[in-house]
Amino acid sequence: MKVSDAVAPASRAGFTDGVLPAACPTRVVLDHVTSKWGVLVLIALGEQSLRWGELRRVVQGISEKMLAQTLRVLEADGFVIRVAQPTIPPRVDYSLTDRGHELAAHLQPLLEWIAGHADQIVSDAAGRA
Amino acid sequence: MKVSDAVAPASRAGFTDGVLPAACPTRVVLDHVTSKWGVLVLIALGEQSLRWGELRRVVQGISEKMLAQTLRVLEADGFVIRVAQPTIPPRVDYSLTDRGHELAAHLQPLLEWIAGHADQIVSDAAGRA
Repeated sequence: MKVSDAVAPASRAGFTDGVLPAACPTRVVLDHVTSKWGVLVLIALGEQSLRWGELRRVVQGISEKMLAQTLRVLEADGFVIRVAQPTIPPRVDYSLTDRGHELAAHLQPLLEWIAGHADQIVSDAAGRA
Repeated sequence: MKVSDAVAPASRAGFTDGVLPAACPTRVVLDHVTSKWGVLVLIALGEQSLRWGELRRVVQGISEKMLAQTLRVLEADGFVIRVAQPTIPPRVDYSLTDRGHELAAHLQPLLEWIAGHADQIVSDAAGRA
């Protein structure tokens, strides 16, 4: 499916129900990827594999419950893989799959842009308030 | 601020509190932009200016309350501008600012990638469940 199917140019003359349709797979995956924590977990794992406790520290503010839920969704979508090392004590690493790395590569320019403009945006918003 | 400040490579040896810091402006703006509805409103307005009722139809499933709230946040961040036309009856259009268009240009490749892979991702996830 091309993005133009999901986000079709909508003529003023007649919008169809097919523009940004609520039930399309693109909306489902977009919701997962751009969830409050999804982006941050993907970006963190884009740098390197991390263990549970490391993810909790890196993604500041995420609760145990939200980290578990976010990882479950990203695993189900095939972005994240959980690898248990046969060591004593056992050790579990979370990594991006190839698909996850592809996605992270598309998130990176967006993050770069936001990081480069965030100070200005927040200070402008404070000035207007 | 560069993205590397917000999302620094975290060495296993010692994570600092500066990695994805919860209070940094990048996190604030990221939350706005990647809110459940923020992305969809930005993409819709990236195509063309739209009136309230048009936005409600294009961004399927958004409630009056959530559309109002999303537009308020995107206006405060300087991404969206509300233009009242001096016509009878009065007419209000929502458009992207230059900053909003820049942001939308960075969202587009992400959306394209998701749209191109969403069918496969959702069907894989269903197969694993």
